[in-house]
Amino acid sequence: MTGEEIRSTLKKYNLQSWSKQKNLNPISVEKAEGIYFWDYDGNRYTDMSSQLVNMNLGFGNKAIGDAIKAQVDQYCFIGPSYGAESRAKLAKKIIELMPDNMGKVFFTNAGADANENAVKMARMFTGRNKVFSRYRSYHGSSFGAGNLTGEPRRFPLEPGVPGFIKFFDPYIYREPIDFKSEEDATKYYLAKLEEQLQYEGAGSVAAIFLETVTGSNGVIIPPKGYLPGVRALCDKYGIMMVCDEVMTGWCRTGKMFGFMNFDVKPDIVTFAKGVTCGYIPLGGVAVSKAIAEYFDDNLLSCGLTYSGHPLACAAGVACVNYFEEADILGNVNKVGKVLGEKLEEMKAKHPSVGDVRYIGLFSAVELVKSKATKEPLVPYGKDPEGLMGKIIGLLAERKFMTYTHENVVLVAPPLIITEEQLTQELKKLDDVLSIVDEKFLG
Amino acid sequence: MTGEEIRSTLKKYNLQSWSKQKNLNPISVEKAEGIYFWDYDGNRYTDMSSQLVNMNLGFGNKAIGDAIKAQVDQYCFIGPSYGAESRAKLAKKIIELMPDNMGKVFFTNAGADANENAVKMARMFTGRNKVFSRYRSYHGSSFGAGNLTGEPRRFPLEPGVPGFIKFFDPYIYREPIDFKSEEDATKYYLAKLEEQLQYEGAGSVAAIFLETVTGSNGVIIPPKGYLPGVRALCDKYGIMMVCDEVMTGWCRTGKMFGFMNFDVKPDIVTFAKGVTCGYIPLGGVAVSKAIAEYFDDNLLSCGLTYSGHPLACAAGVACVNYFEEADILGNVNKVGKVLGEKLEEMKAKHPSVGDVRYIGLFSAVELVKSKATKEPLVPYGKDPEGLMGKIIGLLAERKFMTYTHENVVLVAPPLIITEEQLTQELKKLDDVLSIVDEKFLG
Ligand SMILES: Cc1ncc(COP(=O)(O)O)c(C=O)c1O
Ligand SMILES: Cc1ncc(COP(=O)(O)O)c(C=O)c1O
Repeated sequence: MTGEEIRSTLKKYNLQSWSKQKNLNPISVEKAEGIYFWDYDGNRYTDMSSQLVNMNLGFGNKAIGDAIKAQVDQYCFIGPSYGAESRAKLAKKIIELMPDNMGKVFFTNAGADANENAVKMARMFTGRNKVFSRYRSYHGSSFGAGNLTGEPRRFPLEPGVPGFIKFFDPYIYREPIDFKSEEDATKYYLAKLEEQLQYEGAGSVAAIFLETVTGSNGVIIPPKGYLPGVRALCDKYGIMMVCDEVMTGWCRTGKMFGFMNFDVKPDIVTFAKGVTCGYIPLGGVAVSKAIAEYFDDNLLSCGLTYSGHPLACAAGVACVNYFEEADILGNVNKVGKVLGEKLEEMKAKHPSVGDVRYIGLFSAVELVKSKATKEPLVPYGKDPEGLMGKIIGLLAERKFMTYTHENVVLVAPPLIITEEQLTQELKKLDDVLSIVDEKFLG
Repeated sequence: MTGEEIRSTLKKYNLQSWSKQKNLNPISVEKAEGIYFWDYDGNRYTDMSSQLVNMNLGFGNKAIGDAIKAQVDQYCFIGPSYGAESRAKLAKKIIELMPDNMGKVFFTNAGADANENAVKMARMFTGRNKVFSRYRSYHGSSFGAGNLTGEPRRFPLEPGVPGFIKFFDPYIYREPIDFKSEEDATKYYLAKLEEQLQYEGAGSVAAIFLETVTGSNGVIIPPKGYLPGVRALCDKYGIMMVCDEVMTGWCRTGKMFGFMNFDVKPDIVTFAKGVTCGYIPLGGVAVSKAIAEYFDDNLLSCGLTYSGHPLACAAGVACVNYFEEADILGNVNKVGKVLGEKLEEMKAKHPSVGDVRYIGLFSAVELVKSKATKEPLVPYGKDPEGLMGKIIGLLAERKFMTYTHENVVLVAPPLIITEEQLTQELKKLDDVLSIVDEKFLG
């Protein structure tokens, strides 16, 4: 098919996520390599969001491709109750990469169902019903994961599942009060969380879900001491601490998992995206030894046709091995440092940049109408003038491909990006921000 | 790894679906071809359930394998908002195979999330909240799909999502009344369904979900006129008729989709399993033109990272083409006829066989303590003496691999099975049923 045929066929027969379908005009992609992809007219685009922050190793990774082909030659699938080598290898590998309290993995297809199953397991293990999660969060779009989600994408799922409670994020930049220090902020957030746990009945709370670093909702990095404080509250009240590492896992933040930056050991870790870098859908839930043991004698009432899909697990094994062999963490930390510096420069330079937040190769540029008032460039939950879409368009004209959420532009390139490539791309972002300064601040 | 290493590694690190983990002892599978697979000791097993009724084309299909490899060489993944040829081709192909009222496809990863998104779309399109589904049903295990599910696997998800209502199945064999005729039964079931719609407020019902032929819960085939009658009720009250074709789709019942046996056009069709025959996880929701058009101007508030995964779609295209090129429907209808005849013979012969139900290569043997009383071999929702497990064990000793649910043994081999292979395998089932007659009827 030509690029145009692909586009028109999709418009006729395919429904695209999170969109009104009428004016869609998808770019047809012919080939892809490393951090770049090409349309059918030979235009080259740079993937500055690792697609949906899942292609941590970029396109065309030969090790993963070869592993998939080899597994095709053995077999693509065998049911979850049989022994498949790739499934065994990946489960072992994942637990070995986790803290020493972790015991077993339950494999799913992606991020949403990882969180669905984490809720189920936390409830079964604790015998409690309520689950806490945060307002500025995205945990997936199915009923369970979507009810964990705090942002507007949960609204179509309401009236929701009983027992899903929301609490506030440690979003210091947008807090209506000024904190004396980061420690002070942490103290405040933890006290409010404990207060809310008490109002809800801490003894009826099964789990607290957190994106270790909030992703889609703006790369919100927890202040020092926050996660250990949540851990302490969980210990105090017998609550499972669940880290959603769907975006932050697999080297994205400069550690193998995001929580490793903050010196905590969760009870449950959900993952997807980076575990196969998107080459084949795969997700999962890693649980502590205590939870794993509980299911020795108690029915694990979770299941799906493709749990531990052998072909997906083969891609996962190759992918995880590659992280280590190619020292991807080394690159993330080296190039991530440059990313942070450049973003700080942009913040200093551009009136439209209210805040920049970054950890590893995971970063966000938060746009405002005014640095002084911090008024967001677009109001929460809407964008009446389509400003953010225009900004994405300006970036796309320059072949800098990423996405936005609310008033935030995400920058999260594949973890194989070089310093030189990054510098070159950020120049484009800098140019676009100048246009925003000039034209969009009104 | 050796077979033993795979087994012990999985037992140590992996959580297996729907199980107590302690006494698991998975068979490690080294290779697989056609309807057979082999363990690491060279034992050959026959797959008489197509794994989880998903491997409609069996193992080692070269056309699908080659398509996967070719797609790996182009690229494995590009985000849902870009144009990928395999995604376009598969969406078009699926709509072309559907009735003429169908418009577009939304791709998901598997069956559960197909149903999750079908609920969401039906609610958005109708502006109504309630959804109807049946007691003897399985629609997946995430919160939305699990609340649609009527059998006990939904219990861990309760208290459930508000607005999910259950109605009775047309399970004639176990009905406490005797019907004069099939037509009479249909009239009864439709009248009860309409009565219940009225009690719930038909105008607040968004959708009626049905497994076209109930799968896991015992291959319950709707009586003549039942599905057209449901269609008429849906039309009368403006309700979306959703056929869950996750198991029954893709040639399993002797037609491309199960509903095609019953002369109805659903508004929404969910599918998974057979669309890729399990080679790569993929599912989806096909919607009518009316629904598709609604989302031209209204936000489709559905989304997932892997919607329309290019590698999965490439497997899907190869798989669906293969159904046609290899005349799989021809084989299903030919061999399915033999299956029906042999099952009827077993029913006539064995006191333990209360009922046999079959359509295409989809069938179930329902075991009873007594043909006269119809008392199930094991009580609903439990199996205190592990009888069904023992039966599976007896079959497995003979390398006849399938699974059971309640008092029902499923027989649903890959659709490429020959008459000779089937006859040979059913002999084993016949032998085991003789043991059941003798030892288990107590
Ligand atoms: C933190 C987080 N959790 C869960 C999900 C859902 O993952 P999926 O789209 O694979 O269902 C996402 C997807 O973006 C995510 O960012
Ligand atoms: C009729 C039906 N619907 C939905 C599902 C759920 O599919 P999955 O396991 O891929 O989530 C199944 C699985 O067996 C099924 O049989």
